[in-house]
Amino acid sequence: MTYQLWYWPGIPGRGEFVRLALEAGGIAYADKAREDGAEALIKDMAERRPEPFAPPYLVAGKTVIAQVANILLFLGKAHGLAPKGPRRLFVHEVQLTVADMIAEAHDTHHPVAAMDYYEDQKPEALRKAAAFRAARIPKYCGWFERMLERSRGDWIAGKRWSYADLSLFQLVEGLRYAFPQRMAAVAGDYPRLFALRDAVAALPELQAYFASDRRLPFNEQGIFRHYPELDGA
Amino acid sequence: MTYQLWYWPGIPGRGEFVRLALEAGGIAYADKAREDGAEALIKDMAERRPEPFAPPYLVAGKTVIAQVANILLFLGKAHGLAPKGPRRLFVHEVQLTVADMIAEAHDTHHPVAAMDYYEDQKPEALRKAAAFRAARIPKYCGWFERMLERSRGDWIAGKRWSYADLSLFQLVEGLRYAFPQRMAAVAGDYPRLFALRDAVAALPELQAYFASDRRLPFNEQGIFRHYPELDGA
Repeated sequence: MTYQLWYWPGIPGRGEFVRLALEAGGIAYADKAREDGAEALIKDMAERRPEPFAPPYLVAGKTVIAQVANILLFLGKAHGLAPKGPRRLFVHEVQLTVADMIAEAHDTHHPVAAMDYYEDQKPEALRKAAAFRAARIPKYCGWFERMLERSRGDWIAGKRWSYADLSLFQLVEGLRYAFPQRMAAVAGDYPRLFALRDAVAALPELQAYFASDRRLPFNEQGIFRHYPELDGA
Repeated sequence: MTYQLWYWPGIPGRGEFVRLALEAGGIAYADKAREDGAEALIKDMAERRPEPFAPPYLVAGKTVIAQVANILLFLGKAHGLAPKGPRRLFVHEVQLTVADMIAEAHDTHHPVAAMDYYEDQKPEALRKAAAFRAARIPKYCGWFERMLERSRGDWIAGKRWSYADLSLFQLVEGLRYAFPQRMAAVAGDYPRLFALRDAVAALPELQAYFASDRRLPFNEQGIFRHYPELDGA
């Protein structure tokens, strides 16, 4: 079975966390909205049962699965992208914590109204981004670092990579894109997290993908946006 | 085995979503921080491996599980509080969407800095709350309503309640506490969601709990806070 992945075509966004798992797992999928466009996505989503709350969603035969962490839970089990037993729950816990940080990173440029433009909430964004840089980046990255320190291998849950490692890579990449000064300033505090980022970047399973145009660059329509005024060491 | 639930003792907060599942499932648990206090929680959390990112967390023998949706996924499977097969993923998807709305409801009073007081971010909160009332309440509640409409029973995933139904009840209760004017104004738009709220309130499994002092009232230290200036029809 070839899965269908549906996500907004112009940004890596939340879809990229699913895409990385599909690509690294060598799993066949059609990236539907990149083939057919955003209007096809809107139409498809409205007709699905159950109708997803938002993209991304994965269509697996008759099953429609939405919410990134839920999709990865499904793929992790079906394709061996996560350990079994209690560590499966731990990998999911890491993924849900990644999801929380992604939402906060998004809110640095959209703190008061998701529907409005960034330009219309800039004073609030400056304040939100300052708090995110000062308090939230250390809190989240410190926890990821401690989890890596306590792992029995180089990956978040042992000696094999899981989907959560791929997501941590994408999270660090996004943070480095959005907050290059701040992430450079704190890199030395989180050596294991940055080494994990490098290890995923070097995964043989992902080299063809990274070299392809399937891998989308970050931009200022996505979750991670580089507005220099929101960054600072 | 008696589970240990750890959560801040003075508020219903995110812990209540777990507590409702434990209570409705007739599952034995010790509500540790309500017995031993917040300092005991802080100490316990620091010593756990893996160390949770934040409360609530559940201790099940040697396993420590954090993130509300993850705890409920575990309890749902272990105690039959969710259907099997693809609908298990759907119930988890609903729960993750509830979690997203909870985070946004929290941010109405803490839009720019989680560490600061509400009083220090009031102009931003007024704007965030207005957008939440106008756009987010209809978006989320409309989706929950459609999911109930498409269910083959009165509950979110069929003819038996699941942990996600309990969470939807607590979500509606929290929203009614925080935004009584707005929720009264939209109640007619979401008849199934409000009927679900009533059905959970009437569950025989929960009557003893609701009548006990284990059930904590909402207050202005929690996620759902009633600040009249943030409400409006």
